[in-house]
Amino acid sequence: MSNSKTAKADIDVLVSEVGPRDGLQSVKRTMPTTAKLDWIAALADAGLREIEVGSFVSPKLLPQMADCADVVAGARPIDGLTVLALVPNLKGAERAFAAGVDKVTMPVSASRAHSKSNINMTPEQAVEQVAAVCRLRAERPDYRHIEVEAGVATAFGCTMEGAVSEDWVMQLAGMLVKAGADSVCLSDTTGYANPAQIKRMFKRLHAEIGDKCGGAHLHNTRGQGLANVVAALDAGVMTFDSSQGGLGGCPYAPGATGNIVTEDLVFLLESMGLRTGIDLDKLIGARSKVLAGLPGETLYGNVADAGLPKGFQYASGGRPA
Amino acid sequence: MSNSKTAKADIDVLVSEVGPRDGLQSVKRTMPTTAKLDWIAALADAGLREIEVGSFVSPKLLPQMADCADVVAGARPIDGLTVLALVPNLKGAERAFAAGVDKVTMPVSASRAHSKSNINMTPEQAVEQVAAVCRLRAERPDYRHIEVEAGVATAFGCTMEGAVSEDWVMQLAGMLVKAGADSVCLSDTTGYANPAQIKRMFKRLHAEIGDKCGGAHLHNTRGQGLANVVAALDAGVMTFDSSQGGLGGCPYAPGATGNIVTEDLVFLLESMGLRTGIDLDKLIGARSKVLAGLPGETLYGNVADAGLPKGFQYASGGRPA
Repeated sequence: MSNSKTAKADIDVLVSEVGPRDGLQSVKRTMPTTAKLDWIAALADAGLREIEVGSFVSPKLLPQMADCADVVAGARPIDGLTVLALVPNLKGAERAFAAGVDKVTMPVSASRAHSKSNINMTPEQAVEQVAAVCRLRAERPDYRHIEVEAGVATAFGCTMEGAVSEDWVMQLAGMLVKAGADSVCLSDTTGYANPAQIKRMFKRLHAEIGDKCGGAHLHNTRGQGLANVVAALDAGVMTFDSSQGGLGGCPYAPGATGNIVTEDLVFLLESMGLRTGIDLDKLIGARSKVLAGLPGETLYGNVADAGLPKGFQYASGGRPA
Repeated sequence: MSNSKTAKADIDVLVSEVGPRDGLQSVKRTMPTTAKLDWIAALADAGLREIEVGSFVSPKLLPQMADCADVVAGARPIDGLTVLALVPNLKGAERAFAAGVDKVTMPVSASRAHSKSNINMTPEQAVEQVAAVCRLRAERPDYRHIEVEAGVATAFGCTMEGAVSEDWVMQLAGMLVKAGADSVCLSDTTGYANPAQIKRMFKRLHAEIGDKCGGAHLHNTRGQGLANVVAALDAGVMTFDSSQGGLGGCPYAPGATGNIVTEDLVFLLESMGLRTGIDLDKLIGARSKVLAGLPGETLYGNVADAGLPKGFQYASGGRPA
């Protein structure tokens, strides 16, 4: 992204860590603010360049996210880090912009039933919120550098509606670009996506909105998360969301993660010869920060247990930059 | 395979179940013979058409496999099932042929260190065993229908040697075809493979040995199993080994499976529009047979917990055949 403060020329794929937001909001306990910042610092030190540090939603709905402005303020000084937060609407964006985020991500659900139950808006009303946030950004010079990303939730299917129309997802993506979003991601919120569908839809998304085509937010509900990554790479996707240790798990599948696991994703990419800029030893070391903030929490992922293969080489040939 | 008793025209991908061999040999307890046969019958009823029912090795080394001849005899009457067994050498093949198998698979390790420690032979000596088994088959008319598959173990890397030469793997595959093998599979014995490597090597294998190019035996040690399936499909691979419930786990990675999980593999393939002929509900139901034979054993896999997506459709459109 041209307006990002992070230089990305030395990496092939951007891994966007969502653990402090998507992971923590799925855990009932609240991680203390200082622990969140320790964890974020360790992730950045491992090479993560974009971290979704929290979500500006009502503290009544998600008390785990009540300190989001403090977390943004604490993460801002980290050199080279894009500080990203989720905002559901204009009100959230006002708080996020005031707190000093570099980027916001706004979920817009393709499924009407999911949209209603999740944010009590129609998809069209959610698009209007994106437009309002982009207008807010345009109004103030000190906000103009902030990226606005839209994420089409339930893009690959919905637990309430079942199949979701691909034509409608593409139409929605076009509406979001028109509303002013810098990029549009597709989210497999429900763990319904399969690799054939991922490849087909991201190719179509690129044809539809060109360089506004964003990343993939994939879940591992049915064990298919990294398989979908391979298909998305094939379709040219170069940004992936993931969560350290698959934090938060998956409410529908005991033993399964919600988000794909950052450690396993980075291993996959680096072993395929794609530079992420992330040091796997440091990344695995950062798991201790999660446990420091949430003692006894279950962490997922296979690479942390199995270790790296004998003779493993990073894509860059040496250590990651 | 032309000499298989299983008609495969109505499926796109053959899922070869290895749980009763690869899974059970990784579990210390021994599943009783009748329980093995109940499980195999349930798998076949779910639509599995090829099952590796055991291994003809020394009962001193693997007491769990001591009843292999009885299991073969018990599985033989199942209509449409290819009864497959692992044999490490000529002696094992003699027992397997006498027991009435439809097919044998012979591991030949590309890594010299692994070959030595696993079967106490050099790779060249192991190839000579394949040749001897093919001669045995040629000698007796009642053996001539038996398929001989060779599997190149540690084809993607070795825990002892690290990287394994791709040129050498291809050379070995050529030697195995020359020795008389009907097909040559590549096995990621150590969970080292990545999708880029899988795609490259299977394409090369096909160029090298044409229609003798066999399936992929993939592990999930670092969470990359199904990602490798997607890459292998891209390279034209149409046969995959997997194990129900990831039975036996992975000794190197607590919480991880060894073999990829049949349930998750079948879900992935069917959701991609590839017909397996397997009924997922019946397949998930067959997990109870594993637990009947090995009470309290840990089973893995996400689909069994998460269930099928709302509105899920098999690749055939209706129920699997």
